Amino acid sequence: MSDEYKPLLAVTMGDAAGSGPEIITRALADPEISAGYRCAVIGDASVMKEALQITGVPLEVRAIAKLKEALFQHDVIEVIDLKNIQLDQLSRGEVSPLAGKAAFEYINLATNLTLSGECDAIVTSAINKESLNKAGYHYDGHTELLAELCGVSTVAMMLASGRLRITHVTTHASLQKAIGMVRPERIIAVIKLTDQAVRQLGIDQPRIAVAGLNPHAGEGGLFGDEEIKYIQPAIEAACRQGIKAMGPFPPDSIFFRTLEGQFDAAVAMYHDQGHIAIKMMGISQGVNVTLGLPIIRTSVDHGTVFGKAGKGTADPSSLIEAVKLAGVMHRN
Amino acid sequence: MSDEYKPLLAVTMGDAAGSGPEIITRALADPEISAGYRCAVIGDASVMKEALQITGVPLEVRAIAKLKEALFQHDVIEVIDLKNIQLDQLSRGEVSPLAGKAAFEYINLATNLTLSGECDAIVTSAINKESLNKAGYHYDGHTELLAELCGVSTVAMMLASGRLRITHVTTHASLQKAIGMVRPERIIAVIKLTDQAVRQLGIDQPRIAVAGLNPHAGEGGLFGDEEIKYIQPAIEAACRQGIKAMGPFPPDSIFFRTLEGQFDAAVAMYHDQGHIAIKMMGISQGVNVTLGLPIIRTSVDHGTVFGKAGKGTADPSSLIEAVKLAGVMHRN
Repeated sequence: MSDEYKPLLAVTMGDAAGSGPEIITRALADPEISAGYRCAVIGDASVMKEALQITGVPLEVRAIAKLKEALFQHDVIEVIDLKNIQLDQLSRGEVSPLAGKAAFEYINLATNLTLSGECDAIVTSAINKESLNKAGYHYDGHTELLAELCGVSTVAMMLASGRLRITHVTTHASLQKAIGMVRPERIIAVIKLTDQAVRQLGIDQPRIAVAGLNPHAGEGGLFGDEEIKYIQPAIEAACRQGIKAMGPFPPDSIFFRTLEGQFDAAVAMYHDQGHIAIKMMGISQGVNVTLGLPIIRTSVDHGTVFGKAGKGTADPSSLIEAVKLAGVMHRN
Repeated sequence: MSDEYKPLLAVTMGDAAGSGPEIITRALADPEISAGYRCAVIGDASVMKEALQITGVPLEVRAIAKLKEALFQHDVIEVIDLKNIQLDQLSRGEVSPLAGKAAFEYINLATNLTLSGECDAIVTSAINKESLNKAGYHYDGHTELLAELCGVSTVAMMLASGRLRITHVTTHASLQKAIGMVRPERIIAVIKLTDQAVRQLGIDQPRIAVAGLNPHAGEGGLFGDEEIKYIQPAIEAACRQGIKAMGPFPPDSIFFRTLEGQFDAAVAMYHDQGHIAIKMMGISQGVNVTLGLPIIRTSVDHGTVFGKAGKGTADPSSLIEAVKLAGVMHRN
């Protein structure tokens, strides 16, 4: 055994009808993950056993009732077994309240284990919003659910792929509504969360680039004035608080410039501004991080991949990166 | 001499105070360009001679008054010399009405030479909008100017980088105004122009992916209803006209999917949707094509690069690709 401390991570199983369980088996078989991290899957042991059969990954599932029972032996997947999926009632690749309710329970337990300090961070697999809704849990997604479970109101979504790190002022709102939400108080809050997160990734005095809302960042008011009225004042306020915030920059080049290393992170004004940039790096490569929670939470940056469920072919890259990033954030 | 027909292209010099002239010398020295194309620079011979000195490219400038005088000899840059720049009055890297007026005159002549059939296509270098404005020409950019010179009203901007081809329903408008311009008539027109352009690139029955406006393409009306009210009906109308139009797709993954080859082109709803995706491929790699003109027009996809003017270091990749794309479009 290595002397180095291995982060203890609560990995949620996500939607049981999707590719999440299969992805977990493949990610935990990755040599770097199995050697460097202690992952406890919060899920259902019967589903995880079936996932192993599908993927053919040479590990075995050990069902436990409590985290303290975990031994983290080589070649074993420790599953805190909530026994909340009846395999014969589960239709793979389909929306179901059964899987939605179960997914909620995994997140709830994983959050509590991390809030109490038993785990170092939570790493989440994909959930299906419709399944969650059908089970009676009405959230726009993981982020809103985690904010409520943790009792916080100001959170922000960061997507990361290598050194391209992008946070979002707005996310799950129509473009029309998002324009109305681009206001100084929220922009300043997201710049501050971005600064804290990048420091937690080990970078001192991070250079935070802030995007404009409009083409060419408004070109001096010619194509919209949100930059002049809201974004520029927010950047100035952040600078007065000692943050190295810069911009507003034209949205079309800011993300490539960040990827090139000109900045340590970029702040996007709306969902697709940031998401288009990240997904151009490869749809399954990004990691989603929730900023503003009292716990560390990283996540895969893809959906439930219902189309590949049962085939054992879904790409584990995003989950592997999510585990690693949780480890980095915990160490710092 | 090769037996193959070499396209005859009118290459505008762009803003004389920027890196355009230097970029032209480097692009025309590219072996593939000099062997495969007949490029007549529409510009100022004294500026082009100075650009050669700056870049050290081993070609020489031959000033001519009319296109028919061009010999297109090896190692010679033919310049239709408008003699409209006084070198001692030109400040490199600065906005000036002198360079703005001259840039307009290059575009005007190049357009007329192509409209009359003397040239096969026009390939434009970057202009500075502020310089153009100071000279009394009030256009948002090349596209609007060319539309007026050609007497057409429905045009669309296509950006291309390898097999990623993206057309735009709206471009130089604030995000707020762009939302109001996403309407069926315009969307259908852009889908049709996209279909024609991709066929002109040699692809039969192109698969045209159409982006949504909102995150997740509105997720069934949850995050905006423009997809349901305007985009979906436009796609259906295009399909009824025999076009293989598909969507609306979530904007964050449609461009990566196009890059991967799932579609032959993507239709973006607003400037940054498409521009963010293209610029992630490399800021100086893309080519800008104006669709809807009676002539073929390609262009560099970058600005005047004032910061590198006089240094001889600006990247000619975009101009090289623009020349090649004009050639492909002419052949088909």
